[in-house]
Amino acid sequence: MSGTAQIGVTGLAVMGRNLARNFARNGLTVALHNRTVSKTRALVDEFGAEGTFVPAESAEEFVAALERPRRLVIMVKAGAATDAVIEEFAPLLEEGDVIIDGGNAHFADTRRREKELRERGIHFVGVGISGGEEGALHGPSIMPGGSTESYASLGPLLERIAAKADDGTPCVAHIGPDGAGHFVKMVHNGIEYADMQLIAEAYHLLRSVAGYSPAKIAETFRTWNTGRLDSYLIDITAEVLAHTDADTGKPFVDIVADQAEQKGTGRWTVQIALDLGVPVSGIAEAVFARSLSGHAGLRDASQSLPGPTAAPLDEAEAARFADQVEQALYASKIVSYTQGFHQIQAGSEEYGWDIDLGSVASLWRAGCIIRAAFLDRIRAPYDARRDLPSLLSDKQFAEDIGAAQDDWRAVIAAAVGQGVPTPGFSAALAYYDALRARRLPAALTQGQRDFFGAHTYRRTDREGSFHTLWGGDRSEVAG
Amino acid sequence: MSGTAQIGVTGLAVMGRNLARNFARNGLTVALHNRTVSKTRALVDEFGAEGTFVPAESAEEFVAALERPRRLVIMVKAGAATDAVIEEFAPLLEEGDVIIDGGNAHFADTRRREKELRERGIHFVGVGISGGEEGALHGPSIMPGGSTESYASLGPLLERIAAKADDGTPCVAHIGPDGAGHFVKMVHNGIEYADMQLIAEAYHLLRSVAGYSPAKIAETFRTWNTGRLDSYLIDITAEVLAHTDADTGKPFVDIVADQAEQKGTGRWTVQIALDLGVPVSGIAEAVFARSLSGHAGLRDASQSLPGPTAAPLDEAEAARFADQVEQALYASKIVSYTQGFHQIQAGSEEYGWDIDLGSVASLWRAGCIIRAAFLDRIRAPYDARRDLPSLLSDKQFAEDIGAAQDDWRAVIAAAVGQGVPTPGFSAALAYYDALRARRLPAALTQGQRDFFGAHTYRRTDREGSFHTLWGGDRSEVAG
Repeated sequence: MSGTAQIGVTGLAVMGRNLARNFARNGLTVALHNRTVSKTRALVDEFGAEGTFVPAESAEEFVAALERPRRLVIMVKAGAATDAVIEEFAPLLEEGDVIIDGGNAHFADTRRREKELRERGIHFVGVGISGGEEGALHGPSIMPGGSTESYASLGPLLERIAAKADDGTPCVAHIGPDGAGHFVKMVHNGIEYADMQLIAEAYHLLRSVAGYSPAKIAETFRTWNTGRLDSYLIDITAEVLAHTDADTGKPFVDIVADQAEQKGTGRWTVQIALDLGVPVSGIAEAVFARSLSGHAGLRDASQSLPGPTAAPLDEAEAARFADQVEQALYASKIVSYTQGFHQIQAGSEEYGWDIDLGSVASLWRAGCIIRAAFLDRIRAPYDARRDLPSLLSDKQFAEDIGAAQDDWRAVIAAAVGQGVPTPGFSAALAYYDALRARRLPAALTQGQRDFFGAHTYRRTDREGSFHTLWGGDRSEVAG
Repeated sequence: MSGTAQIGVTGLAVMGRNLARNFARNGLTVALHNRTVSKTRALVDEFGAEGTFVPAESAEEFVAALERPRRLVIMVKAGAATDAVIEEFAPLLEEGDVIIDGGNAHFADTRRREKELRERGIHFVGVGISGGEEGALHGPSIMPGGSTESYASLGPLLERIAAKADDGTPCVAHIGPDGAGHFVKMVHNGIEYADMQLIAEAYHLLRSVAGYSPAKIAETFRTWNTGRLDSYLIDITAEVLAHTDADTGKPFVDIVADQAEQKGTGRWTVQIALDLGVPVSGIAEAVFARSLSGHAGLRDASQSLPGPTAAPLDEAEAARFADQVEQALYASKIVSYTQGFHQIQAGSEEYGWDIDLGSVASLWRAGCIIRAAFLDRIRAPYDARRDLPSLLSDKQFAEDIGAAQDDWRAVIAAAVGQGVPTPGFSAALAYYDALRARRLPAALTQGQRDFFGAHTYRRTDREGSFHTLWGGDRSEVAG
C-alpha cells in the first residue's frame, strides 16, 4: 500500500510543525503524525490552507500515506526518544525507504543508527538543521548525512525548503555518509559559541575600556555590520544592545542576569575535537566562559580579588580603540573558523566522509545562526583548492590577519592591562602565534616526558626514537 | 584454602614489578603472577633477595597463595585487558576479598567494575598511582577509591609503600567510594599538563623575549626552585635545559623535535570537566598546545604568516623581565590549581564522594609528578575550611596573586606584543579577571540566545524567567 504524500513529518512540536509547513508551502504533499493526535489536528486546523497535508492518527496510517520510497522525517528529542520512534516505524517500512532524523543527534548515535537500519535495508539520514524555529519555517540551512542513494531521493525536496544564499543557491548539500551531517551541524554550533563569545568580548571592551554606553555600542555594531563583519549575529547584537527595558528604563543588557546557559552542542564539539587531536581553543573558551558565568558562588567569593585601575579614554582615543576592536574581532573570527574547519577536515578524515569544505561554507551562507558575508570568503579558497591545509594558508586571509595583527595585539594588551577578560581573543592570538612559531617549547615538554616517564623523543637531525638515560650517565639510547 | 602472602600482584611489567618489589622491601610477603611465567621467574631471580616473594604459575595457585581476605593488585593495561583479568580472577575469589586496579583506568570504568563486583560480594578498589616507574619502586603517591571496609584492610599496606611527605605523613589516603581515586588521579594528570605548559611558556619567554640561552634559563629555573616554585617539575626543567647533546654539542632542547605527545589523561580531564560544567581552561590549553605542536603540516603552511618584530632587551631589562616571568608563572599556577581543585570538588558533589580536598593536596606533596612545596600551602586553607568555595577565596592566595598581578599582566602584554604564544598564561589571567568581574558580558550572550532561540533569560531585579518578543513589539513576557 502506498500513498500520495512525498514526505512525512512525525513529531509536531514547534520545529517539526514549522518544517512540515515549510514543505507544504513549497508545494509538497506532507503526511503528518504526532503521538498526541490533537497536535496533528491543530496544525491542520490552523495552517491547513498553506498547502496539502495528510493527517494520520496512527503510525500505520502515517506510513500508508507516504509514496514509495517513503521519506519520513523524525522531529523528536535527541537520544532515547529518537531510538523509540525509529523502533516504532522501522518495522512498518520496506526496503529502500528513508528515515530522516532532523533532531540535534550526536553524530556517533547517527552512525550507530545508520548502520543498524542499513542492515535492515532502510536508509537513515541524519540531518543537521540550523536556523531555529524561524529558519525551519522560512528556510533553514540543512546538513544531511547518509547514502548517496538516499540523497538523490531526498535532496530535491530539501532544496525546495532550504534558505537561499544571495546568489540563489539553496543552503543544502549532501555532506557525506552516516554521521557527517550531524557532525557538521555540531561544529556549526561550536563556531556559533565562539562567534558569540568574541562579540561579547568586543562589547565588554567597548563598555569598559572605551567607556561606551550600550546604545553607542549598538551604533558601533551597526556600522561594523555594513563591512566585512556583516552577519546575523552582529545584526542581532545591535538589536539587543539598542533595546531598552520597559520596566526600568535601563538598557536591556543591564537588567539581564549575566549567566549564560548552554544546551550541549558546544561542549560536544570540544570533547570530539579533543578526541580528534584538533586544537579548538576558541570554542573551548566560549564554553568555559558560559560555565564560569553560571558559578555564582565562586564569582561572589572572588569579588574582593585585586585588579588594576585605568584612566578613561577621551573621545578620540575611544574611537580609535573601537576601530582596533573591530580588527581584533575580525582576526579572532578568522582563527575561530580556521579551528572549526580544521575539526571538520579531521572528522572527515577519521570517518572517511570526504566532506567538501567549500560546500559547507556555501550552505552556511544563509538560514543558519552564523550566516555571514564572511562565509563566501571562506568558500572561495576551498573551492579553489579542496585540500587547502588550513584557512590561514589562504593568501587573502593571511593578508587580512597580517593587516589586523598590530591592532589585535594592542587590544589584548589593553584588556590585559585593564583587567577585562578576553579569553577568546587571547586564545585566538596564542593559536596564531603558535602556528607561526618556527620552534615551539613543546621540545622542552617532550624532554620532560622523557625525563620522568621514559616516553622517548624524536630528534630534529635524524630519524628514530630516542631516550636519554637521565638517571644514569645521560647518554642517549634508541627509544 | 588460604596462603601466607599479604598481597599479590598480577601483571609484572615494569610498574607491577616495581610495586611488588616495593611491597616486599617493606616487609610484606608478596604473591606474584604474570600471564607469561618467565617474567615471574625473572623477578624472583633478579630481586628475590629484596624480600619474601611467593611466585605462582597459575591463577589458582596465585589466589591460593594469598591470606584472607585476599588482596590482589592488577597491574595491566587499562581497558579491555583489565576487564579480562578481573573476569579471570573474580570466580576464584570469596566474599570479602579485594581486587585492586592499579592501572590508569577511566573513573567511569572503575565505577562500573566496582558496582558489578560489589554485587558479587567482592570489594573493588580503583587506585590512582602517580610517580612513574621510580615512584612505584621507591614510594608513589597513592589515591585509592573504594569502600571504607576495603580501605581498612588495604590502607595500612599502602601506607608502608607510599612516598612520605617531609613531615613523615605517607602520601596515601582513602579518597572516597568507587571511582573517586581514579578521578583524582586523572585531575592530577590534568594539572600536570597545565604545570608543564606554563613552564614551557616561561622557558619560551625567557628564550625569545629575554634572549637567554638554555643554560642561562636552567640557572634561572634552579634559582626559582629555591623559592615558592620549588617542585619536581621545575627541578627537572633545569636538568633538561642544562643538558648538552653529545652528538652535536648543542643544547639538548634544541635537538629535540618540538612535537609533544600525550597519552590521554589530560584529554579525559577536560572532557569530564566539560560534562561537569567546570572551566579548566589552563588544562585545555595545555592539551591543545600539545596537539597543535604535532600538526606539522599546518605549522609548515603557517610559516609565512606575518608577526611583529622586537628589539632585544639589555641585560638589566632581561633580568627584570625574568623576575616578572616568575611572578606570572606563580600566578598562573595558582589559577591552574584553583581550576583543578574546582573540578575535584564538582566531581565529588556529582558522584557523592565527599572528597577531602586538603587530604588530596597532602598526598600530592611527595611521590607524584606535581609534588611541590606549593601543595602544603594548598592543604592549609582546605584543612582550615573544608567547604572553601575556591582556592582564590583563600586570603593568602588572593594576596599572592594580587602582589603578582602587575608583573603577570606585563609579561602577557610583552608576549602578545612580541608574538610569543602564551595560551596558558593568558587563559589563567582571563579566568582570574572573569571571576573578579562584577558584570560579565554573558548578559549579552543570554540576550542573543533569547533573540534567536527564545531561550529566555533571568533578570537582575526580580525572580522568574522572561522572554522578549523580539519579532513583535518587543514587550517582555514570562518565559
